[in-house]
Amino acid sequence: MSGRPLDVLEESLNTTVTVELKDGSSYYGLLAGYDQHMNVVLEAAESDVAADDATLGELDVESVEDTTIIRGDNVVTIKA
Amino acid sequence: MSGRPLDVLEESLNTTVTVELKDGSSYYGLLAGYDQHMNVVLEAAESDVAADDATLGELDVESVEDTTIIRGDNVVTIKA
Amino acid sequence: MSGRPLDVLEESLNTTVTVELKDGSSYYGLLAGYDQHMNVVLEAAESDVAADDATLGELDVESVEDTTIIRGDNVVTIKA
Amino acid sequence: MSGRPLDVLEESLNTTVTVELKDGSSYYGLLAGYDQHMNVVLEAAESDVAADDATLGELDVESVEDTTIIRGDNVVTIKA
Amino acid sequence: MSGRPLDVLEESLNTTVTVELKDGSSYYGLLAGYDQHMNVVLEAAESDVAADDATLGELDVESVEDTTIIRGDNVVTIKA
Amino acid sequence: MSGRPLDVLEESLNTTVTVELKDGSSYYGLLAGYDQHMNVVLEAAESDVAADDATLGELDVESVEDTTIIRGDNVVTIKA
Amino acid sequence: MSGRPLDVLEESLNTTVTVELKDGSSYYGLLAGYDQHMNVVLEAAESDVAADDATLGELDVESVEDTTIIRGDNVVTIKA
Repeated sequence: MSGRPLDVLEESLNTTVTVELKDGSSYYGLLAGYDQHMNVVLEAAESDVAADDATLGELDVESVEDTTIIRGDNVVTIKA
Repeated sequence: MSGRPLDVLEESLNTTVTVELKDGSSYYGLLAGYDQHMNVVLEAAESDVAADDATLGELDVESVEDTTIIRGDNVVTIKA
Repeated sequence: MSGRPLDVLEESLNTTVTVELKDGSSYYGLLAGYDQHMNVVLEAAESDVAADDATLGELDVESVEDTTIIRGDNVVTIKA
Repeated sequence: MSGRPLDVLEESLNTTVTVELKDGSSYYGLLAGYDQHMNVVLEAAESDVAADDATLGELDVESVEDTTIIRGDNVVTIKA
Repeated sequence: MSGRPLDVLEESLNTTVTVELKDGSSYYGLLAGYDQHMNVVLEAAESDVAADDATLGELDVESVEDTTIIRGDNVVTIKA
Repeated sequence: MSGRPLDVLEESLNTTVTVELKDGSSYYGLLAGYDQHMNVVLEAAESDVAADDATLGELDVESVEDTTIIRGDNVVTIKA
Repeated sequence: MSGRPLDVLEESLNTTVTVELKDGSSYYGLLAGYDQHMNVVLEAAESDVAADDATLGELDVESVEDTTIIRGDNVVTIKA
């Protein structure tokens, strides 16, 4: 899973990702979509088990429950 | 309800959404319109019951009463 | 009064609007013009009665007295 | 004096305007020029009497003495 | 010396200007160049006497000693 | 390893880099991709020994463990 | 060494420059490259003597040791 940033997003569709924002919060969910501005759409991951593994040791990660659009200019990192 | 961010907004027209802004405030209402900058138009939701359900546990969500344009560069998330 | 954000501005011409800015201040006046950046022009509303109604309960709304251009990048919301 | 924002600036050429900036300061002077970014050029107004009237009650308005270019991205409002 | 902002910069080439930045600092020097982003190039003014006159009463103006490029997005005002 | 900024990124593909962000944090990893906005993709470096050398004396450098997209507008420096 | 900002950068290639950033830090090194966004590439200057002269009296100037890309939107000034 390497390549240009948007290629990585394309390969990450329908997998779980953690999106860290400039305000210090993080969102965890299934990557349902994105665009060239790095606006992303997250949906609830099916299993909370995966979420628990991923966020082990992180304090402020919100597992999304509803379809959530995140405007790209808030994003610091997206971890696939 | 998945896909690219603007597709999700298109599918969310005439449904209630919660828009979280960079200043920490949130707006709840019917999505009446949007554009490619993620500028959005919210209108009052018909039933306050839905609003109460949606905002359960959130402290600073304003249910819009008038037609409200939100400039996109303030948006952090839009939850459908 | 619904539709895309700029359509709502077009429909709101010559009606009173409240423009909330990122610095926390708000301006109330007649919408005399706008452009695609959401730069807006406000003019004094004819009757202060309307202003009083609109701002009931709001602490920091300035009813414009002179023709006032507001640069769009300061805008959080425009309430029609 | 109504219309789109840049039309209002065009009509305001060679008249006195007050430009309020994001840092809280304001500049008062004759509008000598502008461009599409809302960069503006102010020059000293001929009479300080007009300035005194205009700034009555405002604490931090600087009447420009030299030709002053203000970069548009600092502007909050321009009052004609 | 009036007109559109970039016209004023063109007319100010090889004259001394004071550039005020968003961080509160100011630079004084000979305007050696500029571009459409209001990036500017300042060079040391030949005589410090002019600088002394210009900065009378200003606390934080730096007379440039080396060729100094200032990136335009830092600029608040340029006084010709 | 000199030249224009994107040329340096191209030459740095598959080598380890340290990316310093505006929030004061830093990321260390293998540069797997980039684009013209300086969005970058980092992957875990194979050997932690290299990381230890590189971050000697730096307090807040995170060696990436997962494929990590960093949005370019957060970047201050990229050290090859 | 005068002219438009990018011309000055072109003329400064392979000479030492000091780049001051918005966070108050400064970088000193050989200008190895730049682009139209004022993204720059610095490399270690051959002699530390020059660096010592240049930074006399400045408190927070880092002489770059590795090839360092600085993203242009962080730049306040570049002194040639």
